[in-house]
Amino acid sequence: MINRRFVLASRPTGLPTPDNFRIDEVQLPELKPGQVLVQNKFISVDPGMRGRMSQTASYVASLAIGDPLGLAAAGKVLESREPSIKPGDWVATYLGWQTHGVVDAAAARRITDLRLSPSTSIGVLGIPGLTAYFGMLDIAQPKAGETAVVTSAAGGVGSIAAQVAKIKGCRVVGIAGGPDKCRWLTEELGLDAAIDYRAEPDLAAAIAARCPDGVDIHFENVGNAFVEAVLGNMNRSGRLVISGNTADYNVPLAEKAAIRNTSRIITHRLTIRGLVAFDYADRFPIALAELTEWIIAGKLKYREDIVRGFERLPQTFIGLFKGENFGRQIVEIEQ
Amino acid sequence: MINRRFVLASRPTGLPTPDNFRIDEVQLPELKPGQVLVQNKFISVDPGMRGRMSQTASYVASLAIGDPLGLAAAGKVLESREPSIKPGDWVATYLGWQTHGVVDAAAARRITDLRLSPSTSIGVLGIPGLTAYFGMLDIAQPKAGETAVVTSAAGGVGSIAAQVAKIKGCRVVGIAGGPDKCRWLTEELGLDAAIDYRAEPDLAAAIAARCPDGVDIHFENVGNAFVEAVLGNMNRSGRLVISGNTADYNVPLAEKAAIRNTSRIITHRLTIRGLVAFDYADRFPIALAELTEWIIAGKLKYREDIVRGFERLPQTFIGLFKGENFGRQIVEIEQ
Repeated sequence: MINRRFVLASRPTGLPTPDNFRIDEVQLPELKPGQVLVQNKFISVDPGMRGRMSQTASYVASLAIGDPLGLAAAGKVLESREPSIKPGDWVATYLGWQTHGVVDAAAARRITDLRLSPSTSIGVLGIPGLTAYFGMLDIAQPKAGETAVVTSAAGGVGSIAAQVAKIKGCRVVGIAGGPDKCRWLTEELGLDAAIDYRAEPDLAAAIAARCPDGVDIHFENVGNAFVEAVLGNMNRSGRLVISGNTADYNVPLAEKAAIRNTSRIITHRLTIRGLVAFDYADRFPIALAELTEWIIAGKLKYREDIVRGFERLPQTFIGLFKGENFGRQIVEIEQ
Repeated sequence: MINRRFVLASRPTGLPTPDNFRIDEVQLPELKPGQVLVQNKFISVDPGMRGRMSQTASYVASLAIGDPLGLAAAGKVLESREPSIKPGDWVATYLGWQTHGVVDAAAARRITDLRLSPSTSIGVLGIPGLTAYFGMLDIAQPKAGETAVVTSAAGGVGSIAAQVAKIKGCRVVGIAGGPDKCRWLTEELGLDAAIDYRAEPDLAAAIAARCPDGVDIHFENVGNAFVEAVLGNMNRSGRLVISGNTADYNVPLAEKAAIRNTSRIITHRLTIRGLVAFDYADRFPIALAELTEWIIAGKLKYREDIVRGFERLPQTFIGLFKGENFGRQIVEIEQ
């Protein structure tokens, strides 16, 4: 079986470009006992991969030139030498940007609840949803009546984080780019207000205007510029969850947005905390069950931005950094 | 009885200047039942007062023009209409920059343990020591073998924070200005290394060189520039306690030092947390007892920088922002 996969062709220096990516064709090995052959169907496109494309160490090791790209994917089992998994089963894996792959059964989570599309296993029921869930519930710990601000609120993590805060009784203000996303936040997700950051010359003032009682929780998916804008609006004992920094990935240190307005960290006893969802792996099953029930009950909505065609992975990835996606970004393979 | 006191004459725009301060003479009221008349002896000089001199709200209300200045002081009781306090008793109060004052007994803490000078009640056994104690023990939670970095490590808060980390078994690196302070840190306080920030063109590299195993705890007393320098050196699950920002007080927002190197907040799951010691008031007695025992046992050293002369309060205060003090800054009244 021939597997087509994207590998790292060269390292990006700023925003990634198409020539950083190359398609490689390799022969897949025969299955050993306990292994399964998977045909990928839904492939996750994550801004977090940008960090691994650079030489600098991140929380995961850097990729080498020629290494396969990508992380989460959902696919169908074609062959199995593991009794608990049958051909035709859906599995979530970390096969990444490949058409096929052979994995140990331990690295393939069976998707048994098919009330929702298997694509959700790499979105609302994958790392993005889990990041939102643990970031909001474990770190921010929302209390009813508090005000929460979420950036990239129409994105895969932000949209879930915002709704989890709503479920917990917060007043929630979402920040997103463009009127379409903002309308979706208030009309579809039921957020209390939305801020189109592209239309606001003074983001700090825009947050102050939408948050008359100040901000108790800030959930950051974009980067320093938004942290700087919210800091002066934070209430005493406020919590800032730092979940992503898409806007600062592709920028040399000296050009990254600056955080200067730090005096409230002391005066208002703020806590700023970074989050990587993998730290909560032992609680993933409970979190996934709760997220699923919220979706089934209509309390939690998700939006997938599905691009069709394996070859479009690089350009879809590059588009993430331009805010082109609307919802969880997924590439679907038509095979 | 005539009381001399410093009041706010005008608001500083950057670094305070002598004309922001004015001496006022007022007649003290007669004692009511439950009140005591105190003659101040040791007056605390705190950078934190700078915030209250501006119009901007801080964690305490802004001062009005004409308001008396200062915070903690230690003095002797001259007259008492409260049975539990006798003339000649030492008390710690918040009378601030005044020669005398009348206070309710509830606002005067009797200093009963006279094994140490009563001046310690506004230093190592006052808010500076308590800030160090709770910031290090409650927020940073040092574990034996961890590496802790403390800025303004020769100052009233930093010197105690650094030694508390040593007592808990950490490897401790102090940052201070000038070779005298650095020598005191390693030779007198027994810190493992000291960094003279004035002699280091690249502070981040200097921290990396002195902390070969990375930094688990950072205790910040100075401001954003030091946070920026340490961020890239932080270990996974590192804690940054933000206790003071002396260097950023007197600077307009756009000119404050910038924090940009924030990616490790996520990748290394860092926690940044602000601290105000008053939040721990119910545990002050326990903390003061433990700090006292550490001092008596020779485990905790403190240094007071005592300037004599009531009139020298303003210039001593201004000197704080130039790093002129070496140890806890106190003005002693010769009266």
